[in-house]
Amino acid sequence: MDHLKTPFKGVSNDVKGRLACYKKDWLDTCGSGARILAPTAYIFFASALPVIAFGEQLSRETDGSLGPVETLVSTAICGVIHAVLGGQPLMILGVAEPTIIMYTYLYNFAKSSIGKELYLAWSAWVCVWTALFLFLLAAFNACTIITRFTRVAGELFGMLICVLFIQEAIKGVVSEFHIPKGENGSKEQFQFQWLYTNGLLSIIFSFGVLITALKSREARSWRYGTGTFRSFIADYGVPLMIVVWTALSYSVPSNIPSGLPRRLISALPWESESLYHWTVVKDMGKVSVGYIFAAIIPAVMIAGLYFFDHSVASQMAQQKEFNLKNPSAYHYDILLLGFMTLLCGLLGLPPSNGVLPQSPMHTRSLAVLKKQLIRRKMVKRAKEGMKQQASHSEIYGRMHEVFIEMESAPSQTVEKELANLKEAVLKHDDEGEANGQFDPERCIDMHLPVRVNEQRVSNFLQSILVGLAVCTMPVIKMIPTCVLWGYFAYMAIDSLPGNQFWERILLIFVPPRRRFKVIEEFHASFVETVPFKYIFMFTAFQFAYLLMCFGITWIPIAGILFPLPFFLLISIREHVLPKMFPPQHLQELDAAEYEEIEGRPVRARGQSQRDDESTADVDEDEDSAEILDEMTTRRGEIKRRSMSFNDKQFQVFPDEPAAHS
Amino acid sequence: MDHLKTPFKGVSNDVKGRLACYKKDWLDTCGSGARILAPTAYIFFASALPVIAFGEQLSRETDGSLGPVETLVSTAICGVIHAVLGGQPLMILGVAEPTIIMYTYLYNFAKSSIGKELYLAWSAWVCVWTALFLFLLAAFNACTIITRFTRVAGELFGMLICVLFIQEAIKGVVSEFHIPKGENGSKEQFQFQWLYTNGLLSIIFSFGVLITALKSREARSWRYGTGTFRSFIADYGVPLMIVVWTALSYSVPSNIPSGLPRRLISALPWESESLYHWTVVKDMGKVSVGYIFAAIIPAVMIAGLYFFDHSVASQMAQQKEFNLKNPSAYHYDILLLGFMTLLCGLLGLPPSNGVLPQSPMHTRSLAVLKKQLIRRKMVKRAKEGMKQQASHSEIYGRMHEVFIEMESAPSQTVEKELANLKEAVLKHDDEGEANGQFDPERCIDMHLPVRVNEQRVSNFLQSILVGLAVCTMPVIKMIPTCVLWGYFAYMAIDSLPGNQFWERILLIFVPPRRRFKVIEEFHASFVETVPFKYIFMFTAFQFAYLLMCFGITWIPIAGILFPLPFFLLISIREHVLPKMFPPQHLQELDAAEYEEIEGRPVRARGQSQRDDESTADVDEDEDSAEILDEMTTRRGEIKRRSMSFNDKQFQVFPDEPAAHS
Repeated sequence: MDHLKTPFKGVSNDVKGRLACYKKDWLDTCGSGARILAPTAYIFFASALPVIAFGEQLSRETDGSLGPVETLVSTAICGVIHAVLGGQPLMILGVAEPTIIMYTYLYNFAKSSIGKELYLAWSAWVCVWTALFLFLLAAFNACTIITRFTRVAGELFGMLICVLFIQEAIKGVVSEFHIPKGENGSKEQFQFQWLYTNGLLSIIFSFGVLITALKSREARSWRYGTGTFRSFIADYGVPLMIVVWTALSYSVPSNIPSGLPRRLISALPWESESLYHWTVVKDMGKVSVGYIFAAIIPAVMIAGLYFFDHSVASQMAQQKEFNLKNPSAYHYDILLLGFMTLLCGLLGLPPSNGVLPQSPMHTRSLAVLKKQLIRRKMVKRAKEGMKQQASHSEIYGRMHEVFIEMESAPSQTVEKELANLKEAVLKHDDEGEANGQFDPERCIDMHLPVRVNEQRVSNFLQSILVGLAVCTMPVIKMIPTCVLWGYFAYMAIDSLPGNQFWERILLIFVPPRRRFKVIEEFHASFVETVPFKYIFMFTAFQFAYLLMCFGITWIPIAGILFPLPFFLLISIREHVLPKMFPPQHLQELDAAEYEEIEGRPVRARGQSQRDDESTADVDEDEDSAEILDEMTTRRGEIKRRSMSFNDKQFQVFPDEPAAHS
Repeated sequence: MDHLKTPFKGVSNDVKGRLACYKKDWLDTCGSGARILAPTAYIFFASALPVIAFGEQLSRETDGSLGPVETLVSTAICGVIHAVLGGQPLMILGVAEPTIIMYTYLYNFAKSSIGKELYLAWSAWVCVWTALFLFLLAAFNACTIITRFTRVAGELFGMLICVLFIQEAIKGVVSEFHIPKGENGSKEQFQFQWLYTNGLLSIIFSFGVLITALKSREARSWRYGTGTFRSFIADYGVPLMIVVWTALSYSVPSNIPSGLPRRLISALPWESESLYHWTVVKDMGKVSVGYIFAAIIPAVMIAGLYFFDHSVASQMAQQKEFNLKNPSAYHYDILLLGFMTLLCGLLGLPPSNGVLPQSPMHTRSLAVLKKQLIRRKMVKRAKEGMKQQASHSEIYGRMHEVFIEMESAPSQTVEKELANLKEAVLKHDDEGEANGQFDPERCIDMHLPVRVNEQRVSNFLQSILVGLAVCTMPVIKMIPTCVLWGYFAYMAIDSLPGNQFWERILLIFVPPRRRFKVIEEFHASFVETVPFKYIFMFTAFQFAYLLMCFGITWIPIAGILFPLPFFLLISIREHVLPKMFPPQHLQELDAAEYEEIEGRPVRARGQSQRDDESTADVDEDEDSAEILDEMTTRRGEIKRRSMSFNDKQFQVFPDEPAAHS
């Protein structure tokens, strides 16, 4: 516990570390010029969209006391602050689902006790306390224990959020069949047939959004369309789909009442509801002392959540594979988060914190950018060299120079990092034509180490854009609510792949005789190393725990304690689980990193393991039927299969299959 | 042209050949016992469902003169006749889409000239002529030219049908938004809001059917569920979905008018409309001579279509991979088809002919069945042998016996067919444990030659079932029309994979730099052997031709000539195409068999071909982005990849670019 002895040690280290590279953080973008706008726009849409959705959710839960405007403003303000003063500028901030849930509980409590009008004032007090706790956590270097938030807790939390999204989507679509609360049912669009029509429309629209968004998400690996087109769809497909379906929602026949389909309800930033926020501080005095202290309880929860979320988001944004050069700043960022929470509280806004998956998405897009920059220059120099018939070692020399001048890194470390590249370039000397013409692009693509364009500009700009988005509220209000329900479902489903908890749940439903299918593809390593019985136990435990957590969220006001089980889980992980599972298996199931194994053919098609004789006979038949299925066209024509022609006249084009396809 | 010299030669040969095995055709099922019911039920659903759908289509086009009842009855009668007297009992008969189109033209012509009431009488005359032409074709051994119907014509025809299905589905869904013709618009369910509701419901239902049906089609390769469950879904999923969605259609709220969603309209078999058919023959006299001769034109078309369809279906049902033992009977089956057409005509029913893909589906399911039977016995004997510590050659001997007694085939041919199996069994002697414990199941599964349970019972029973289905019309009428539109769309999309014309169209849209993705999977051999330019030309030609054919179907009455281009295509194929394409390429593109090549890794992930430098730069970036996409979980966590544990986990992989690109 020596981190308690030296308060502010972590913070001061962080500040020192970041100050050293602060200037660079702003200047480093010059090299990239306008290209920096690509990651900016990308991350802007990725973070603005959910913030709007959460805003709509919040405004329903709080009868409009808070809404999209507030969530957007909070995201913008905190974003700018963090971009300018933040420790890790790659981390993206935003109002996240946990905040929404918390603020919903706060509202319900306030409504039932202090009164609706003092809701924001009381929340302000909650933020004050939260800020205080965050300061303490930062001061006493709590981030040193961040490693204790292991996968089991993180993924469980992720699953809970996912379940809550699904719940939100379902609740939303169902609500489209009913008269919204606080509306008078006599209006034409609230007559049964129109309610029903609205409901049917929203089923069509929300499924439409869900399916198209999920598809566009995978655009990059599509077979069709040029690379530019595919990556555009992959990066902007989801916002695009929101736009498309919103446009479609205006194509309904004219003799349908104007209210159909329903659209976002939200105060505009320049309307009185919004302007009230400036006076929240004044009302804080009106809150009685008892309630001020009662605010401590939610504050503890929120502080815990934020500490957890913020640190993990920061961690994800600077995973070691990104191979960042600038130091981390966990402690300092928590301190800053405290200030931002305080500020938001006083303005009556829901606070923002580091968000997933946007933060790593941000770093990733910057890594791609950086690679483009270095690559372009290197290829240019290399080609010059080739023109001048320079030797491969000379060519490598030029590449090396480029790297150094762009990375301004000490030569010897570069030497190490470029080892593979060097080797790849030089081996063309001795082998010569053996492995084809020397091809700088390919060498670079394969062996250029990952480098991230670490800077503050993209984060800063995207926050500004979020701020501007507030002014476009009139446009945003054109989005039909059902489109948002679809978007919630999308967020839920999109978050599942890669969540090992989820993947284990699926694995459990794969009958033993089909597991070879899992092994044949990329699969998490525990599939091969941990006995199924332990996988099952671990997953069952996690699932039961999830149900409990989900149950708690349903408790009217005590639900505010829903983060508690997660803090509890950390000590369970440390003291209980090791007793239930052999250490190395627990280590695999709760691994620090996502470890994957390459797929490999497990059995010749159609022959199958003998692991359960009982069903063997039946399944043999199925197997043979399965093969016949694959072997016949839909017209019932049987396909003749032959080995690839690889080894025949096609040797002529070893690297260019496209040429003869 | 010597087949013209010896009339009835083909027919008599066929008859001789089939008579020889006629008795066996009925008795051979004894071995299988109740198990024969599996393929029976399977084929029954596969053939009854489309027949009902076509019936509904027909009844809309002919204002109810013909409908599901007629199509079912025709299918049942012809099915029974063919099962009992047919040459190739594996072929399945049914009323097919071309017949529906033809009968629609006949109706439109009749309505505009002879009058609605004489429609069936005149169609009867058409059938008389058709029968005559079929007799001639059979008599003069026309089937010897069947080989001239090459892939190009067959697949073009398939695509046309597919397009017509899509058209039907769209027309259907759109019609749900309008008042059906001949209904008075004053009814409650025809008020705008209810029409609109009905429309929205049918969008939801038809897409629901389409998607669920397509998914269930692939059930066999699912990862989840036991083999029995998966193959049940794969075999009966589509009818099941029709049932499920029909059931759902009854879950709409009660305060919706009873007419919503709309359901099939069809006369019941015991109602006067249906009973009228018995009197069609009488009316034939009322048709004036002129029209009787006019009937020759459609008759020629139909005869041509049937000759084509019937022969191809028969061909598909007895592909050489099925390795059938009983002789074919093309000529005789055409003759019989003539008789059946005549009979249907006189009864005022749309005639049936051999259908795809049901016919090969039937053979296939029987192949599976046969395999189960032989396999069970063989395994039993082999296990006995193993108990008695018999040598592997003894064990093989027992297997051999089983095969002979079940196949009643001459020993030496069996010897040849079982060569692989023998080898597989015996190699366990010398190698011993080298390749694991000797495992009879596996050996058999891998090396047992395909055998089909050739008999007439399954076909006979399924036809009887179709007949019984007529009595369930009251139940069938519960199906909402929108479910059928979804089913039409399903039939269309389901027919595409494996149609090389379609696959070539797709290939054209794959940009050159993505073609490696095609090569990496199973792909038709022409992809590698034919230069892209020829693939493109050939496909473009085919596509233009398709458009023309589709255009013709739109011409009011002359549309009846739509089969003409297909007959034309055969001579185009023989005389024009060889001038446009080098023979070996034409041979590949219009291959007699569906040839497939195994996929193979074309490039290390992330490195890409150099075939077009122009876009290279852009696409490199996309490539790296694509890899990063694959390498990160949805939470943005980076996956560490390692080879399978077979080859040590903690190795360094210079050729694993994902790890450092």
